[in-house]
This record gives sequence, C-alpha cells and structure tokens, in this order.
Amino acid sequence: QQQHRLRARSECRIERLTAQQPNRRYESEAGVSEFWDRNNEEFQCAGVEAVRNEIHPKGLMLPHYNNVPQLVYIIRGQCSSLRPRRGIQGTVIPGCAETYESDQLTREKQRPIDRHQKIRRFREGDILALPAGVALWFYNDGEESAVSVSLLDIGNEANQLDQQFRNFFLAGESRRGERSPGEREQEGRGQQGQEGGDQGKRGKQKEVSNIFSGFDEQILAEAFNIDPEIARRLQGQDDQRGRIVRAERFQVVSHQWEDQQQQEEEGQHGRLNGLEETLCQVKLRENIGNPTRADVFNPRGGLISTLNSHKLPILNWLQLSAERGVLYKNAVLAPHWNKNAHCVMYVTRGSGRVQIVGNSGRSVFDGEVSEGQLIVVPQNFAVVKKASQQGLEWVAFKTRDNAISSPLAGRLSAIRAMPEDVLVNSYGISREDARSLKYNREELKVFGPGSRSQREDA
Amino acid sequence: QQQHRLRARSECRIERLTAQQPNRRYESEAGVSEFWDRNNEEFQCAGVEAVRNEIHPKGLMLPHYNNVPQLVYIIRGQCSSLRPRRGIQGTVIPGCAETYESDQLTREKQRPIDRHQKIRRFREGDILALPAGVALWFYNDGEESAVSVSLLDIGNEANQLDQQFRNFFLAGESRRGERSPGEREQEGRGQQGQEGGDQGKRGKQKEVSNIFSGFDEQILAEAFNIDPEIARRLQGQDDQRGRIVRAERFQVVSHQWEDQQQQEEEGQHGRLNGLEETLCQVKLRENIGNPTRADVFNPRGGLISTLNSHKLPILNWLQLSAERGVLYKNAVLAPHWNKNAHCVMYVTRGSGRVQIVGNSGRSVFDGEVSEGQLIVVPQNFAVVKKASQQGLEWVAFKTRDNAISSPLAGRLSAIRAMPEDVLVNSYGISREDARSLKYNREELKVFGPGSRSQREDA
Amino acid sequence: QQQHRLRARSECRIERLTAQQPNRRYESEAGVSEFWDRNNEEFQCAGVEAVRNEIHPKGLMLPHYNNVPQLVYIIRGQCSSLRPRRGIQGTVIPGCAETYESDQLTREKQRPIDRHQKIRRFREGDILALPAGVALWFYNDGEESAVSVSLLDIGNEANQLDQQFRNFFLAGESRRGERSPGEREQEGRGQQGQEGGDQGKRGKQKEVSNIFSGFDEQILAEAFNIDPEIARRLQGQDDQRGRIVRAERFQVVSHQWEDQQQQEEEGQHGRLNGLEETLCQVKLRENIGNPTRADVFNPRGGLISTLNSHKLPILNWLQLSAERGVLYKNAVLAPHWNKNAHCVMYVTRGSGRVQIVGNSGRSVFDGEVSEGQLIVVPQNFAVVKKASQQGLEWVAFKTRDNAISSPLAGRLSAIRAMPEDVLVNSYGISREDARSLKYNREELKVFGPGSRSQREDA
Repeated sequence: QQQHRLRARSECRIERLTAQQPNRRYESEAGVSEFWDRNNEEFQCAGVEAVRNEIHPKGLMLPHYNNVPQLVYIIRGQCSSLRPRRGIQGTVIPGCAETYESDQLTREKQRPIDRHQKIRRFREGDILALPAGVALWFYNDGEESAVSVSLLDIGNEANQLDQQFRNFFLAGESRRGERSPGEREQEGRGQQGQEGGDQGKRGKQKEVSNIFSGFDEQILAEAFNIDPEIARRLQGQDDQRGRIVRAERFQVVSHQWEDQQQQEEEGQHGRLNGLEETLCQVKLRENIGNPTRADVFNPRGGLISTLNSHKLPILNWLQLSAERGVLYKNAVLAPHWNKNAHCVMYVTRGSGRVQIVGNSGRSVFDGEVSEGQLIVVPQNFAVVKKASQQGLEWVAFKTRDNAISSPLAGRLSAIRAMPEDVLVNSYGISREDARSLKYNREELKVFGPGSRSQREDA
Repeated sequence: QQQHRLRARSECRIERLTAQQPNRRYESEAGVSEFWDRNNEEFQCAGVEAVRNEIHPKGLMLPHYNNVPQLVYIIRGQCSSLRPRRGIQGTVIPGCAETYESDQLTREKQRPIDRHQKIRRFREGDILALPAGVALWFYNDGEESAVSVSLLDIGNEANQLDQQFRNFFLAGESRRGERSPGEREQEGRGQQGQEGGDQGKRGKQKEVSNIFSGFDEQILAEAFNIDPEIARRLQGQDDQRGRIVRAERFQVVSHQWEDQQQQEEEGQHGRLNGLEETLCQVKLRENIGNPTRADVFNPRGGLISTLNSHKLPILNWLQLSAERGVLYKNAVLAPHWNKNAHCVMYVTRGSGRVQIVGNSGRSVFDGEVSEGQLIVVPQNFAVVKKASQQGLEWVAFKTRDNAISSPLAGRLSAIRAMPEDVLVNSYGISREDARSLKYNREELKVFGPGSRSQREDA
Repeated sequence: QQQHRLRARSECRIERLTAQQPNRRYESEAGVSEFWDRNNEEFQCAGVEAVRNEIHPKGLMLPHYNNVPQLVYIIRGQCSSLRPRRGIQGTVIPGCAETYESDQLTREKQRPIDRHQKIRRFREGDILALPAGVALWFYNDGEESAVSVSLLDIGNEANQLDQQFRNFFLAGESRRGERSPGEREQEGRGQQGQEGGDQGKRGKQKEVSNIFSGFDEQILAEAFNIDPEIARRLQGQDDQRGRIVRAERFQVVSHQWEDQQQQEEEGQHGRLNGLEETLCQVKLRENIGNPTRADVFNPRGGLISTLNSHKLPILNWLQLSAERGVLYKNAVLAPHWNKNAHCVMYVTRGSGRVQIVGNSGRSVFDGEVSEGQLIVVPQNFAVVKKASQQGLEWVAFKTRDNAISSPLAGRLSAIRAMPEDVLVNSYGISREDARSLKYNREELKVFGPGSRSQREDA
C-alpha cells in the first residue's frame, strides 16, 4: 500500500534548483550543527529539511525528540583502530523495558546497577532510521569527530501539525529572553517569532530550548519527587554548553558488549531475517557503506547500494529509503526519473556534473556538484550524473520506502521496453537507429566512461 | 500502518493556547447545540472542531450526516431508575439491511410491521464512534437532559473536500433567505458567505439547512413516488423547530430489547471479542466511564481509561481514540508529550492547573481549566496537569487510533530509560541526583499528591 | 484501509457548479487533445483535471509519463468489422522484463527479433487504469478515430509535489523559446510561467515538451552510446508533429496474438480471478460498456455498471473507481450522496436534468447536461438526475476505490432504513405518509418514469 505525504504549497514553480551548503551554523561545546536553508523553495516543495552534525570526541548530543522522522547517514567515524570505537546512540521508545544493565561496566563495586533501554553502536556508512517523537541522544566515544548528514522529513504523515521542523530538547540551556534558532530563521521570512517573539531582538542566539524550562520549577520537583535544586538543573538555568556537550566520563557499554556487537555485525552479512520487528527490538540501523553489499556494480563504472524496507523494515513505517552511489572517474549514471519519490542527494566525496530536466523540457539544473553540497531532485524530474576526474560519491534520501527509479538508457530502460515501431515513429529514425537506441548500452544503469568509443574499437 | 491526516496551514505559530467555552449557541425546540470557535488557531492547526449538544427529554435530533467522523462522549444521561432509560441512537449504513422489526412494540394490533436498521442505546460514559457520511439521529427517552461533547475530525482523510465542517440535514426548516450557521461563522472570518451569501444579512439565524429544500418539489415527488404535499413536508417549509425537535410519541424499542441490551452490557465486561466487525454489525460504542475498567489506577492519585482500536476496532478506521482521566484532589499527571497525535481535552468535572510547553521551551499555556472548558494540546508539546482541591476529570480525544504518550517522569519515563551517564552529563548533576531523577517516582503516570514529603517522612 | 488524498485549498466556497466543455485544444498531426479548465474552482477543490483525446487512424500518441494516475474511458473505437481493430496501448513498468517478441510479425526474414514489454488492446467501453510515473503510448490501428476521456487525479497520494498536472514527454518537439501549455495556462492565473518563463511571450504554442531536449546532446550520446545525430533525433529538434503523430507502418502485434486476445476477452466474462496481481502482469483494463454485466438493471429505467477494486484490483492501488450509467427516456436516478468520494461525471450520450444540493440546503447546480459535458459533484453533496427524451448516458470517475453512494429514495434508501417514528416526528407527517415515504419506491435506485401514476393505476 502506498502512503501519503503532505505537500507544502499548492504550486511549486521549480525554475531553478541549486546545489547548496548549509547556511546556518550553531557551535556547541563539543560539536557543530549546520542546517540547510529551510526557506529554499525546493526544500519546501519536497517537504524536507536537512542538517549536518559534527560531534567531537567525547561529545554528547543532548537528549531530544523531533516532530518528524529522520534518516541519518554517518559520513565519517573512526574505524581504523584494532577495536574500532565509533559512536553510541540511544533511542527511548515509550513503553519498552530498560533491558540493559551496566553494573558490570565498572570496577567500583559499590556502584549500583544502572538499567536503561537498548543502546546502539553506529559507524561510518551507517543509515540510522529514527522515528518521530522518540527521545534520542548520541555520544562519540571515538578518537575523531563523527560527522553525519540527516534528512528531516517534514512532510511525513507522522507529523500532524504543520510544515515546520520542531526540535524538543530535554536538556540544555533554558530560554531567558533569547530566541531559538527557529525564531531567528522565521524572522528571515518576514514573520514574527514563534511562540512569543517580542522579546527576541536582544541576546545572542541559543540553539537549544530545553522544554523543562517552560514548566514551573515546583511542579517539576513534585512530578519527579526531587529537590527543587535538581529541578533547576533539569531546566538548565546555568547551562551555556549548547546542544552538544563534553562528557569526559561516559561508560555505558562493556567490553563484552562491544565484542558481541562486532561479532553480530560481522556475522550479519546475509542473515537479515526480518524477525527483529517487535516494537522494542526494532532494528534502526543498517550499513550501506560496504561495497561488497552493493545492489548494482559495474567494475568500469561504479556501484549503487539501496536501503529500503525489505532490508530495514522500519523504513516501511517511516516511508523513507536511502541509496549510496559511487561513480568512478568519468562514469555516467543513466538518465532516469524517480517514479514515486523525491530524492535528496548529498555529495560525500568528489564531484560531478548533474543535469536535471522538468516537465517543461527545460533544464532546471546543469552544473557541478561537489563534496558537502546537497541537491533536491523533485519526483518525476529527469536527471543524469557524470563523475568528474575525481569520481563522485553520494548518499541519497528518498521520500518513499520503496523508491523506484526508471532509467531512460541501459538494460532496464523505458526505451528498451518499447517496440521498435514506437521508436521509429516517435523519433523519425530508421529501424537500425531504433535498435542502437535500445541495445547499444548493455550496462544496467552505472555506465563506464567512453564506452561508445570503446565499443567502436571493439 | 500509519494513516494520514491533513494539516490546515503551512505554518502554525502557536504562541498561546486557550481553555475555552463554546462561543456559538443554537437553541431548538427540544435542545441546545453549542459550538467552539472554529476560527481559533489551535483548532485549525489540529484540524478539529468541537460541539456540545444537550437533548431534552423526548428530544429527537433530526437525521443528518456529516462530512467528517466524530467521537461523541456522553457526559450526562439518566441512569438512576430501576430500568434506566438513556438515549437511543440510529446510524444508517448504506447497503445494510433493515434488521429490526418493531411490530411487537405496540398493542395496536392493526399497526403493520416497521422494519429499520439496527439502533443502539447510549448512556453516561459512552464513547460513540461515528463515521463520516452516514445518516444519524439521536433520541432521548430518559427523564433528564442528555449532554454530550463531540470531536469533529475535520482533518480526517475521510473528508476529501476542505478544512470545513459540513452538516447535511435530511429534515428540518428550509432556507428562505436566512443563512446557515456556517455562513454566519464565515463572515466572522471576513469572508463571503458560502454557497450564495448575498441574500444573507436579513432574517434570523437558522441552524438547520435541510438538503431536501434544495431539490425541486416535483422531482422529489417523482423520486419517492409520493404526493407533492408530502414532498413539501420533506422540505420542511413550515418547520420552525430547529435541529432538535420534541417527539412525544416515539416507541421504537420493546421491553424485550431493553432487557437484552442491559444483559449484554452487564455481561460484556471482559468479553469483547472483536468479532463484530462485519460492516453492518460493527460496534460503534464503548463505555469508558466505569472505573473498574481503568487501564491505569493509583488509589492515591486517580485513574486513566483508554479507548483505542484494540478495544473498539472501528477506531482504526476512523484513526481516532479517546481517554478518560480522573485525578483526585491535588494529584498530578506526569509531564508527558503526545508522540503521534493531537489531544483535545474537555473537562467534565472539577478543575486543575495545566502547563503546556512548546519546542521553543516556553510555556504556551499555564492556567486553571475547569468543568466545561476545552483545550487543544498539539502533538509533541509537553504537558503537565495538577488537580485542584476539587479534583479534575476529563475526556480527551486523540487524532490517531493508537495514540501514545511519552511520560517524562514516573515508572515509564524517558528519563528513566536513559543511562545515568547521559543524565549526569546532560544536567551537570551528581550520580546520586541522576538516580533520584530516575527512581524517585515509582508510580506509573498518575501521581499522588505530596509524595515527596511522604517519601521523606518514610 | 482508507487512503488519503490531498485537498487543494483550505476553503472551497462552492456556490455554483458548472457543466463544461473543454476549454483548451491542442491539434497534432494525427489527433486532438482537449483539456478542461484547471482553474475552475470545482476541479481544484476536488483535486482533479480532465482531458479528452482523439487519436486518428494510424495515430500514435508519443511516449510520455504523468505525475498522477489516470482513469481513461474509451468513448469510441471501431468495433464493427469482422476482426475488430481498436487501439493498442503500451505501459512501461520499470524493472519488468521485455516479455513480448515480435519476430513473427513480419515476413521479412532478415528482420531480427524485437523484444518489448507487454502491450494491451483497448476498445469502446474500456476503462484503462494507468499508474503515475510509468511511460505510456497509445496507437490507433482501427479505421475510425479513437476518442477517450481521462480523469487526471492530481490530489492522489502518488503525487508528492504540488496540485498541478505534469506531463513528461519522451519524444516530440523540443522547446525553442516557446512555452508549454502549462505555462500559458498559468499566465491565465496571473502567475509567472513555470520553469523559466521570461522567454515565453513570443512563438506559437507547443503542446509537447520533450524532456530529452533539456539534456546536453553529448551526455545523451554518451549515455545511450549512440551517434550524436541520433541524440538530436531523441531531442526532437526538427519535430513539428505535436503529441499525436502519424505512424503509417506499425506492426507490433501478430494475428495469433489478436486471436488470443479476442478469445480471452470473450471467455473472460465471469472468470476474473484476481490472480494477475504480480507487478508486471497486473491487469490495467476492464470493460464496463457491456450492458449484460451491469450491477443494477431496471428494464423500465436503465442500468448502472460499477468498476471498483474488487473487479480490477489495481484500482485499490490508485484509489479510484468508475461507474457507467444509462438512464432511459425520462427515467430518474435516485437522489443520493457520495459518501466517501468526489464524482466526476462525463456525459457520453443524450442529455438530462441534474440537480445538486450542498450543505447549505441550496441548489448549487440545476440544469441540463448533455453529451460532451463534464460536471464535478463534490463528496457528500446530494444529487438527482433525470433523463431527457433522448435518454442520458455517462461515465463517472470517483476518487476512492470503493466509492459508496447513499440513496435517499428507493429500496436501499436512508429514509427506509429509519424507524417510522423518526420520520413521523422529523417531518410532522402521519404514519401513513411515513410508510409511503419508505415504501412507495420498490425500485433500487434507477427509477422508471411516471411510476407514481402507474402505481395509482394499479
């Protein structure tokens, strides 16, 4: 069954797409968050936003929940040491048991057992699929910064309110006359700040708005049955650290657990069995960085790895999917259209030329895209990519769990699927030319460079 | 699978929520209808409207259908007499057979059999789940007024037209230059009246707009094969009684049926079997007023009864659910957020203090709510409730069939589900304080008053 | 499970509906396309557009895909000759194999095998259900023009972008400063042309915008591994033929295949088994023109044939259904409302009087509709139809796969389903009159003319 997503506006006049860097940057004690411009028309039309996070070593992204689901791609995380340390992610699913115990993690014998919900490792090449409304935190226990790019799916049906990304922090600095990023951003759109904007103009930007700070201190103390002093700590009244804080001491996982995680991952190749689907054990993570698991591979051209709900069932619930693509030097990705989804493409390495054509038959994008840039390809628009001398690598997020692309050239192309007589008459060409249109590219959809001349040589 | 609902506007700047009484009142011959202000931003953002109906004894709400599904909560209906009479509700489901016969209802031997579709009793504490587009009528055969509050789910996917509640009456006064409530209301929004507004200004308000009055009398007479005089009665040309009319003689149910209904209800505790789901027999009603069926109960704090699609399967189809809550004197409902739904809360008894906090970290509501007031809590906004000396009782309607709330304090809280190290580092507190945050409230989510001091005493 | 569709605007003030002819006409070498006015409020509120196509004999509608699903009704196609030739339709479903071979189609022994995807015959009375995003072409190998009317379901959840119909042609003339129909149309709405409008004012209207023309010629040549000259043909640089071109030589089907198709169709009566549902063999076509398959038949009044997902399973995926209606001279279709869908009615023959009433109780349409006119009946609005002396025939497209209408008169009417006491008290009529309201029409929903006088005679 199909699912629905909301469309932002009754009309999207997409005259020109852009490949962009983030335009808002928030620095925290132990990391940086960079948001793409949500006012950009193509983001609004596709109903998405995007953010890139960098968590420094020992950085903890404070617990928070969002009003929309997100897909996170881990661009970089350390994986070189003997026992690679990467990152830890916690997801709090309401009603699930605290199934993890950490008493064995320490040699302080006096320390009592700490029970909490399941936590998960992440590493370079992982996609994390995170539902809306669940509390999340991230910790980097590696030795290098962990860098990720996230798609925030504003248009998702999980969000019942409006076309706006909302970030609810459970910790961090409280609002004392300063405005949240959302408010600054909204001013840019000529609107009043949200949720009480008149005190906004003064003060420096704060990137965290701890929801506890909106509650009465006494009620919090009563609700948690704690000392009012601790309630004030919940509200973050003296906190200046931002959304990613330095956590020197952070031992939530044992060596035994690490070993087991690693074994599981290694053994996991090929034995995904789809049985992990009960709500509390649901698998939220899958690696698409490993070239040996690619779905399309052409030794002359590159590879495509797809992650959809057949491989990671929660994607059916989120109605999202992802793809990792690698084009070698000068290789070409077949011109194609995305049949049932928008495609949000982030360049992870190298560069290439991308052309995108809309229903008017005009090019709406024709240019170089390079590492760190992101571009939105609207549903049904036709696109072709050609890698530069440096090659081109990307991760693409798609707004449907079973996103399907329809190639125009290559072995599975729409052109090849049509009778010769349709081509002969449509293009006014000879039967021989029609056959070359259909059969000159035997490759699937990742094409090696210069195959025409090569074929002629052969 | 998730379902979708429409969101009204591309941006909801929710700066301040309000607890409100209805602001439009329509009096009829045998009852009163009161609507909440549909122009209120929080109603529009949540895609809902609400109405409170009072049907006097012997009052019949005329047959009508709506463009949206509704949940009705029966606030008050007589249930004290030996054979309690309450109310009768009829739902006309297209294509279902007339399975009820009422010949045995009377001793006039000449009266022929009257066949009609299934009818249903309702009583205090019932939730009625009524689909869009089916014809409905209600009759009060009790000795006191029957009072109900309804959620009208404008944003529901069952409604394909626009974000407006539309009420189609099959009887009642015809339009003779007067305007329907919808029109008056729209003027309040500075818009032209709907469906021909220029003749509107004169005449008194009429609350019924009988659709038969829009058809040609001759065509109606031909379609029903009746005398044109009866067609004019269908059109309600002389009718001044409003939408709830007095029906002195109304005997559609027999004593035998009453007895059986009562038996069924009494026997029903605990034997809901979900087998009633064929279209024509589908169960549309469930009682949530009975404290013995509460899902959460704390003898010191109160109780919560939830009604979702597991208990009443049609709620899956409507994508709605409901909750009844009772907080005893000074008790607290855990601060929490509604993960996947808006929550529309109507106070049925008593009063209490409610605080609601948005993603900006500021309070968007902080005040007393009391009997008869209604407040919309947007999805993901955090809320805490504390009963007054009088206690606090409410019914809450939620815009998802499996609405989930995520408590911040108590036995199932997000805080307790996180490792101590996350809390220690997020709030800059000691390990001991982190443990008190996690474990000082052992209650689930309904908290007794003053438990902190109590614990300290213990 | 229900599905969702998007509603165009937050408010639809439907004061007056209209029965319309198309208002935009595009002539091509071998056919004509006529679009209804998409700016009409009722189209926008229902989230639909409509087009009528006429393909001349030997006409080929060029390959294209749309951003929305469509239902096509074949109004006219030759079916009089001994071996009736009608039309051929090709649908390119991404990833499906080229399962058709056409080597046996010709006696030129040298001609190599041509493999392509499944193709399908269509004929008068067929409904074609065509998903969004798949490439389509149509050929008329009959001896008369093939005429069809299509519903384009803009509001369908398959479309993630905006409330606009987008047509992507894979062939045909390229854009050289001229504007697409979409652009002209948008100007009419006082907006700038889409996708780069400033060069629009000059030049004559072109109705095709070949997406290949937006790509770089060199990249196309490389992607297809073809000569740049063929790439230029793909781009249609010299093409002036429009969207329907003349294809003299077009032999994609063999006599054997024809024979088998015909047998299948004849044998098919009554043996639809629903087993064809794998993606590549999915059945996209069903005939509703044959009176012997009608669902409702009244020899004095006419017939109704319904096509929903029980008969054509792909309709569940598209969330659309269709109905063919025939009213004999002076017959009446019961007043009714469409419970869960909009209804887009196109008159295929004759004429009749239609009345439509909204929730205000006022008539929003009351007039003659005749062959070639189309009218949108919004969800829940009440409608009655009466054939003229010429009779009335129509095809109706509905925006839900299991569209349900609820009659107000006749054997399945809402009135008959209610107890007599409800009618007596609602309309202030006698018990006898209530019985005549319930029982005077024993016909289902297609009523013969003048049955009242007839009954009185009897």
